[in-house]
Amino acid sequence: MADLARLSIHLATLPEGDLADRAALLARFEVAGVGVLRAHLERHGLREARRILRDHGLAVTSLSYGGFFTAPDGGERRARIDDTRRAIDEAAALEARCLLVVPGGLPPDSRDLEGARHMVEDALAVVVDHAASAGVVLALEPHHPMFAADRSVLTTLEEALAICDAFGRDAPIGVAFDSFHGWWQPDLDRRFAHAGAERLRLVQFADWPRALADPRYGRTVPGEGVIDFPALRRRLQAVGYDGPFELEVPGGAEAAREPAAWLRRLVERYALHA
Amino acid sequence: MADLARLSIHLATLPEGDLADRAALLARFEVAGVGVLRAHLERHGLREARRILRDHGLAVTSLSYGGFFTAPDGGERRARIDDTRRAIDEAAALEARCLLVVPGGLPPDSRDLEGARHMVEDALAVVVDHAASAGVVLALEPHHPMFAADRSVLTTLEEALAICDAFGRDAPIGVAFDSFHGWWQPDLDRRFAHAGAERLRLVQFADWPRALADPRYGRTVPGEGVIDFPALRRRLQAVGYDGPFELEVPGGAEAAREPAAWLRRLVERYALHA
Repeated sequence: MADLARLSIHLATLPEGDLADRAALLARFEVAGVGVLRAHLERHGLREARRILRDHGLAVTSLSYGGFFTAPDGGERRARIDDTRRAIDEAAALEARCLLVVPGGLPPDSRDLEGARHMVEDALAVVVDHAASAGVVLALEPHHPMFAADRSVLTTLEEALAICDAFGRDAPIGVAFDSFHGWWQPDLDRRFAHAGAERLRLVQFADWPRALADPRYGRTVPGEGVIDFPALRRRLQAVGYDGPFELEVPGGAEAAREPAAWLRRLVERYALHA
Repeated sequence: MADLARLSIHLATLPEGDLADRAALLARFEVAGVGVLRAHLERHGLREARRILRDHGLAVTSLSYGGFFTAPDGGERRARIDDTRRAIDEAAALEARCLLVVPGGLPPDSRDLEGARHMVEDALAVVVDHAASAGVVLALEPHHPMFAADRSVLTTLEEALAICDAFGRDAPIGVAFDSFHGWWQPDLDRRFAHAGAERLRLVQFADWPRALADPRYGRTVPGEGVIDFPALRRRLQAVGYDGPFELEVPGGAEAAREPAAWLRRLVERYALHA
């Protein structure tokens, strides 16, 4: 039986719309945590968004996203660094557990994977002090390798942790492990141990469907795919992870039609299978 | 400028059909190597297929496939081992450079990735002696992680090489590196060096498209995607790889309509970009 107190719902899981409605829905199902999209902050303003979340007793387990550092020219890279600084300030205002950092894919017309990886490291070196002074932890999110060209040149926990190591143990940089992105990795136990509880800043849950039409958009509800969530929880437990489990499963048409039924299904599946 | 003498074409690249026609087409473009599908052997008989390939001066760079060892019950696993033994005999008769071994995905209803990996190791331990006595090298083909559930529980060179290591340097087991499956790996130089020329039994080339509708079936012609083939060749050269570059890019409707035009495009792109 899963620990419901550790359940969080990423807002991309619910249909787009008013934050107050979404927050009320989460509170109705006694969900304690929420992954917030910056679009909600734009819509409501930071102060109002924070009030709504507090009024519904929701802890912000993550803010999405900073990063996308792999821009083709210096001006655009600086713009993305500035945007990530703003995201850090927003994460601080929301007392978010972390700011999710999506590294970015290959720049247009580039085939230089290593060069793009260096862009990510260089940009992190610029923003990390701001994160430290704001008291915000950056959570690097390695993506499934099928997104290497267009979304994240970092694909494995090993790579993300090597970057964390380079910044030293005191820097506010950790990793986010998303089961959909990383379930296939052969050395998870070793990597979780390498990270340790401190650097495993966030764990996101979504399942990988057994039969895939299009895996890129095919993540599914825990219990409906191939990932062994109880085993994954045991492995995380073994290295001392006691943070939230944030479900991120965009619900599409089904969620838009019946958000409450969709959320009920998610919470039930989580309780049964994850 | 690519070395055309090292070019091989996997027959999955051309539309299905008569082997003699396909072989004549390859010979017309002075292609020296061919990756053979076992379906061609079934259609023509092993002896006749061998004669056709020899008549056209084609060296068999690979035979596809053995493996698929991750069956749910022992009887089925034994059947797949027996089938792999037959494939080994066929590879020997064709003097193929290697038999491509596809490990297999998760068994139906299973979520036990590690258990499935052990099935692969166990089955290899059974067939390796047969390969040794037949003088055939098994080439383990780690697949892109998006195929981990349904086609290959081995996803990285690191994993495949760890299996090779366990069998020792004298065992006839190496790896096949397919650029489409493995281009994203952050530690390629280290892995190529670990493998060495001896265990890098085959290199297959296909490109990863920059914009993907469905990446699973979206491999494309070298030069049309994000992979830096000249850099890849230099890295392979650095560890002494002097084997073939086998193009495997199923051509679909375009190839079926105009096989000769399709093959011309492939050969030209290879010469220009790979």
